[in-house]
Amino acid sequence: MAVVVNPGLDRSDPLAPAWEQRRVYLKRKGARGGELYTGLTADFLGRDSVILRSLGHRSPMRTETDQKILDEPRFVAAHLIPDSADKDDDKVYFFFTERNDVGGKRVLVNKWSTFIKARLVCSVPGPHGIDTHFDQLEDVFLLRTKDEKNPEVYAIFSTISNVFQGYAVCVYNMAHIREVFNGPFAHKEGPDYQWGPYEGRVPYPRPGVCPSKITAQPGRMFGSTLEFPDAVLQFARSHPLMWRVVYPTHRQPLLLRTSTPYRLTHITVDRTLAEDGPYDVMFIGTDAGTVLKVIALRNGNSVTSEEITLEELQVFKMPTPITSMEISVKRLVLSLTCDIRQMCESGLGSHET
Amino acid sequence: MAVVVNPGLDRSDPLAPAWEQRRVYLKRKGARGGELYTGLTADFLGRDSVILRSLGHRSPMRTETDQKILDEPRFVAAHLIPDSADKDDDKVYFFFTERNDVGGKRVLVNKWSTFIKARLVCSVPGPHGIDTHFDQLEDVFLLRTKDEKNPEVYAIFSTISNVFQGYAVCVYNMAHIREVFNGPFAHKEGPDYQWGPYEGRVPYPRPGVCPSKITAQPGRMFGSTLEFPDAVLQFARSHPLMWRVVYPTHRQPLLLRTSTPYRLTHITVDRTLAEDGPYDVMFIGTDAGTVLKVIALRNGNSVTSEEITLEELQVFKMPTPITSMEISVKRLVLSLTCDIRQMCESGLGSHET
Repeated sequence: MAVVVNPGLDRSDPLAPAWEQRRVYLKRKGARGGELYTGLTADFLGRDSVILRSLGHRSPMRTETDQKILDEPRFVAAHLIPDSADKDDDKVYFFFTERNDVGGKRVLVNKWSTFIKARLVCSVPGPHGIDTHFDQLEDVFLLRTKDEKNPEVYAIFSTISNVFQGYAVCVYNMAHIREVFNGPFAHKEGPDYQWGPYEGRVPYPRPGVCPSKITAQPGRMFGSTLEFPDAVLQFARSHPLMWRVVYPTHRQPLLLRTSTPYRLTHITVDRTLAEDGPYDVMFIGTDAGTVLKVIALRNGNSVTSEEITLEELQVFKMPTPITSMEISVKRLVLSLTCDIRQMCESGLGSHET
Repeated sequence: MAVVVNPGLDRSDPLAPAWEQRRVYLKRKGARGGELYTGLTADFLGRDSVILRSLGHRSPMRTETDQKILDEPRFVAAHLIPDSADKDDDKVYFFFTERNDVGGKRVLVNKWSTFIKARLVCSVPGPHGIDTHFDQLEDVFLLRTKDEKNPEVYAIFSTISNVFQGYAVCVYNMAHIREVFNGPFAHKEGPDYQWGPYEGRVPYPRPGVCPSKITAQPGRMFGSTLEFPDAVLQFARSHPLMWRVVYPTHRQPLLLRTSTPYRLTHITVDRTLAEDGPYDVMFIGTDAGTVLKVIALRNGNSVTSEEITLEELQVFKMPTPITSMEISVKRLVLSLTCDIRQMCESGLGSHET
């Protein structure tokens, strides 16, 4: 598995060029000789953003320049997650935040191809139905399980506020994400109307469905999206957003941190088998070079979980922002602007540097 | 001036009957022999809310039971503020929070009669145009100036969140409040439409205008709102809310407090003349029986102000919630559930208990 590191990149550095801060990519190996999927902001003012596919045998493909499709995104991660045993049905997911037409930033997950997106919600329920939202996506980690179609999606979010700083970790289920992508599209009759679910007929093949054996109809096989009927592409262009949102498991964060002296920027999770069952150990990296090792315990079917900080490690003597974290054969690899460090991590046990 | 105290009432007591928690009133003395204006929640489940006028020579009057007009309000204060030299043109303002149709709570100020309301905004500007809102109105104080038509409106707001607790003091200018009430009404074409400004013809006399010499037309004198044309009352019923919102002076709070060990619940302000000019000294009461004495200094035309806490007084030995505060001939009168205390306050100087 490739380590995605942007050398020399400090995410907290406001002077780093916008396109560098926002580049994420994944390399897909396959029968077609490997393809590169990239999400990036193509100009230095952060205006022209694109998700593109290049290399491989197929012709390059990119999203159109359209605010409806990508509006000042900040790309955070990209992952390939299979939908079924049919490799042609694989989906590429991009995780990013973007502006939206009510003036705010929203966290979105995008499913390639025929680009459609859905909003990930990470919020704490509040009085009078007013939730506290964590809308700025900081990092995403896919906890792979035996079922490669259903990894668990761990995400760190922060608040967008000049008054309150807080972080939340929310976990999403791939089944919920797929449900939202298979649900109604968001629709607006005109500029004076509210957003609502699209209730008309959706053209076939439905946007978000890959051209594969599944979309093959007698006498009409869709070999690529280029062969999709115009109506499908037009519909996709005017309805890139799903109406429903993706809620996290148990409808609330697994972990909350407020008033911390540092920013939580990276997450990596390790499933460890303890005597009483499996535990998901979260390793959370900060912009001060510390790593928090936390587990969240849930009592039976209880909605709320109890979080326990096992350790708070100052990995680097100088407080330097962590730029990448990865667990590699039970060794936690951290990278920084100008340094790479390894530490053993033995699940719930002790650590070495 | 009457002291408004609800004896035996602890605002933070969740078991106190809803109607008691929410009653505010003011007595208007005048040629008509005195009238009582009351905002209250008339049933114990907090469902039927009303603003009513009683006593005096005129027939009693009340707002209709309609969610559009009052939706689960929590009344905070009521004040009479003259609009002009014509006493018939006086306005009664009710300050309250209520639910609204996007599911949230909003702070509203209501202008009697022909009930119209406007939203008071108290927020801190944030990145990407996302402000941090303080939406729960806690207390209102009118700082009377020589111009009785233009008191300054001081208000304490709190956050509505289970994660972050914070308080802000915002100051509003009566001229801004009147501008909003004289501006466009909020309008919605139908349930699927967005709110927007009403651009059609508003019937005469415009809702919010009192029947007085000003509304008198040749051959048609509106002696009371009962004589207003049906079209006016129908329009008022379907357009109780103003489209524009009232922003605070300098568009941001004068004071911010986060992570305090107590709740800020009451405010009283005293304008004191110091050697270098006038200062507005804020006395902020808490639910722990403390009083903060704070001034906000503004450097020239700077938007941001520097707040200086002069004193933090523990007025009562036992931490007891303050239920009322008033400055009376340079003496700060505090009331609690079962106690009344006076303290001298000599502007920026020292204090005695």
